[in-house]
Amino acid sequence: MKKIAVILSGCGNKDGAELTEAVSLLISLSQNGAQYMCFAPNIEFNAVNFLSNEPLAEKRNVLFEAARIARGQIQDLATLNPSQYDGLAFVGGYGVAKNLCNWAEAGAQCKVLPDIENTIKTFYQASKPIAAVCIAPVLLAKVLGPKKVTVTVGNDKETILEVLKTGAQHEICPVDDYVTDRESKVITTPAYMYGSAKPHEVFKGISGLAKELVEMA
Amino acid sequence: MKKIAVILSGCGNKDGAELTEAVSLLISLSQNGAQYMCFAPNIEFNAVNFLSNEPLAEKRNVLFEAARIARGQIQDLATLNPSQYDGLAFVGGYGVAKNLCNWAEAGAQCKVLPDIENTIKTFYQASKPIAAVCIAPVLLAKVLGPKKVTVTVGNDKETILEVLKTGAQHEICPVDDYVTDRESKVITTPAYMYGSAKPHEVFKGISGLAKELVEMA
Repeated sequence: MKKIAVILSGCGNKDGAELTEAVSLLISLSQNGAQYMCFAPNIEFNAVNFLSNEPLAEKRNVLFEAARIARGQIQDLATLNPSQYDGLAFVGGYGVAKNLCNWAEAGAQCKVLPDIENTIKTFYQASKPIAAVCIAPVLLAKVLGPKKVTVTVGNDKETILEVLKTGAQHEICPVDDYVTDRESKVITTPAYMYGSAKPHEVFKGISGLAKELVEMA
Repeated sequence: MKKIAVILSGCGNKDGAELTEAVSLLISLSQNGAQYMCFAPNIEFNAVNFLSNEPLAEKRNVLFEAARIARGQIQDLATLNPSQYDGLAFVGGYGVAKNLCNWAEAGAQCKVLPDIENTIKTFYQASKPIAAVCIAPVLLAKVLGPKKVTVTVGNDKETILEVLKTGAQHEICPVDDYVTDRESKVITTPAYMYGSAKPHEVFKGISGLAKELVEMA
């Protein structure tokens, strides 16, 4: 049975992992007969109120909040041993651009959490497939851009321009489809990069990505 | 286009709405061409750390946390106008048994939030279908038990005994199926009442329930 490591960046699209994307990925991995374990960095982040968009008074922890998605079955990213997994997957949400790196403010000049960067490089060097949803392909572009990986972030011009600055290549893709870079074993789908996407369209794109990920793993 | 009101009880299975169930429902409603709006009560609740299961220092708000599932597109339950919707749906998670009523401590003797009780009664009296997932059928049993509604909470003996005390009838049901009471227009599926259920099994049960809900609406 194929084993996939899923990286989460919190719980909710405005400050963490996008929930429709995260759950769609877990359903689809399960549907395709893969085992998975969720991981998240054990770090604090700036959470927001999802109605007012104002910052919350208290700090929250990425690992503890991501645990909500995984029903408590989650591990600290620092303990991830890539040799135990056949593939790696990231979902989107602003947590990717704010908690796993600082793409939200720095774009292609961003810094990536060392544990995230090392994990991506280790899977890539071992020729194990890596999937990324929504804004998460920017992590792969930033870390693997010099390797000329091809990713999609949908059709948002501003984000595409930043992606191209990393050295990565970009392919426009509709919400319910996905892009596979067979040479680099990188699979990406845009999901809520299309802001008006419907949940079943996001699910369809992620289902295709997950099937491809499990097959390549 | 059919319009469904979806009631959420927070964000995460241990103190709020179960996330795989909530997202599966939204995907399936969207798949079946229904519109939906999410609602949650604007009340505080006792949140827990999902890794240690210890209470958190700060109080959280059911509406604000549920907003994470709905990408901010959610309304205060107090503003729900049943005449604008063709059907009603609840997902599970301990939030149902702790935030929407106190079933977790009182079982069949529980008290239900007045806004929840009134909403259920209004949809029932208007002969509009009501769907409930996982532990949420206990709300329907408590409120509509004297009407002899039939529900499922899976095969958990202790919960079934409490359900029967309300006057409701119970039917055992596997995780990937659902039970329809055609007379009362009540549709239920057990989902994570089976603790070892896999995400795609939960999704299958909820997909069937959602299709039935939209057809009956």
